[in-house]
Amino acid sequence: MAVYTHLSAEDLAALIAQYDVGELVSAKGIAEGVSNSNWMVETTGQDGNGARFILTMYERRIELAELPFFLDLLDHLSSHGLPVPHTIHDRHGASWRMFDEDKAVALIEYLPGVSVDRPTPRQAYAVGASQAELHIAAQAFGKTREDRLNVLSNLSALENCSDELLRIDPRLADMIARGQRVHRDWPASLPETIIHSDLFPDNVLMLGDTVTGLIDFYFACHGAMAYDLAVTHAAWCFERDGSTFHPEIGSALLSGYQSVRPLEPREVMAMPILAQAACLRFVASRTQDWIETPPDAHVMRKDPMDFVRRWDVYAEMGDRLFA
Amino acid sequence: MAVYTHLSAEDLAALIAQYDVGELVSAKGIAEGVSNSNWMVETTGQDGNGARFILTMYERRIELAELPFFLDLLDHLSSHGLPVPHTIHDRHGASWRMFDEDKAVALIEYLPGVSVDRPTPRQAYAVGASQAELHIAAQAFGKTREDRLNVLSNLSALENCSDELLRIDPRLADMIARGQRVHRDWPASLPETIIHSDLFPDNVLMLGDTVTGLIDFYFACHGAMAYDLAVTHAAWCFERDGSTFHPEIGSALLSGYQSVRPLEPREVMAMPILAQAACLRFVASRTQDWIETPPDAHVMRKDPMDFVRRWDVYAEMGDRLFA
Repeated sequence: MAVYTHLSAEDLAALIAQYDVGELVSAKGIAEGVSNSNWMVETTGQDGNGARFILTMYERRIELAELPFFLDLLDHLSSHGLPVPHTIHDRHGASWRMFDEDKAVALIEYLPGVSVDRPTPRQAYAVGASQAELHIAAQAFGKTREDRLNVLSNLSALENCSDELLRIDPRLADMIARGQRVHRDWPASLPETIIHSDLFPDNVLMLGDTVTGLIDFYFACHGAMAYDLAVTHAAWCFERDGSTFHPEIGSALLSGYQSVRPLEPREVMAMPILAQAACLRFVASRTQDWIETPPDAHVMRKDPMDFVRRWDVYAEMGDRLFA
Repeated sequence: MAVYTHLSAEDLAALIAQYDVGELVSAKGIAEGVSNSNWMVETTGQDGNGARFILTMYERRIELAELPFFLDLLDHLSSHGLPVPHTIHDRHGASWRMFDEDKAVALIEYLPGVSVDRPTPRQAYAVGASQAELHIAAQAFGKTREDRLNVLSNLSALENCSDELLRIDPRLADMIARGQRVHRDWPASLPETIIHSDLFPDNVLMLGDTVTGLIDFYFACHGAMAYDLAVTHAAWCFERDGSTFHPEIGSALLSGYQSVRPLEPREVMAMPILAQAACLRFVASRTQDWIETPPDAHVMRKDPMDFVRRWDVYAEMGDRLFA
């Protein structure tokens, strides 16, 4: 959540001049993005009436070779009517450009809306429906990207931290055996497409009960649609620390999804394991971050136990939650 | 440069409802402000045509008792035609409100423009002229606030770090004796008013050669106008690391200032010492920050030596620079 690179007014004006969007009026670094820097940019617009954009600079993690996948996916979904920000192409027709030789930048549509913290059932229903629409539209997307955060890699990541788990929390060490069971029970074949795989409330913009933006597709990959729904379920239906499950939000999310794309029986059966796999992923990534971030680093560390508590719920009542 | 407090969509909507600005459309945390959090807020506007604001949450450092000084100063300067953002008053007429019992928030006018890194002489001239206009308009402001970062307090702050100075840089230890000379030579009486006292390029918004915004008045205090100009001179007329002085920028800044408010002879004479006092201030504050910030804190530490190099220039050629 920071701006990693300083862009001067001169840099910004030169960049904006590469696009047919009028002249630069304002630019403010925004506190979004984990591995990239973002600016809210205002220009005079093509018609002089003003226009706003998000300028993203790719700093790390995302390799240049993958940018066409991510940016073309935005354009594909946007052109299929999803509330996904499309890219602005530069005067040469390109959706991204190099800046300073080693960093890529893209100018992206600005979408209205705010992220909700405590969704209502109507909001959860709308999110479920949007996710199903996303899954259907993504089927016609011609590119693919493998899921690097699959069950096996998440399990390995957690196993690699095994010496530290007890020190973080005694209960965390049990999660390796539990993760091994998830890996063993992972269903053989489920309907797949390109999935968002990280549709937390932060990545959904809403106005009232309407989804106005699905953003941050930088974990998008090929995967099971029901797994994507399970990630969203784990992300939306609990208190932040996982202490309380909100069944009415869970039901609304599933109903909304199925109002657009009914789950197949094999998907319904798989949901409890998929939801546990989602928990494994965030327990593993948060444990790694916890170990790598010094306690005095002025950075908020996300507690892996938040997703151990969710995992408990799915392990104990999963069959009932998704029946 | 961060957002310290999480504001949910629900929090934001409830806050915005206290103002006659339409409904919330968007809010993004922006990477500005050192001791406060800021959001770029968009609403439907009073007329439905959209409006933008900066929402500031005061987290630290600024005591609540001082907020009326800072916010009334914005309104005073704005009403005198300065490009200073005015506050939006809530439905009860107040320029700030409490949030969560312990934090104050203010909704502030959004101004266009971007901060320049490498000003041209024409831009420096415009900044000088704006600063002189600010000094003249501030004379009619009825409130006051003492300068807590005066020469004596800056000198004491540096002396308190004396054990660490050699470890940071051997040359830094010499700055105590030099600071004592600045304190000794500080001119007895100079024309004073409320000054900005921190008019770095970050705090000036420009479009082309026009100053469109003077922002971040949270160091504003009673002080010598020529000292304020000296701070701006030190902030604008050097390479960032202080390695190179740009005489043409310095001349343009002084000419611009004097096109609105000619300096008195005693002010011209004092400029070399005032500029050194400005360097003392930033050497002291950066040294404190350097010592207090762990090297692995993921926070960029500003090098106090950047202002030692400026100080060298003022100590050696000050008389010629301001003649």
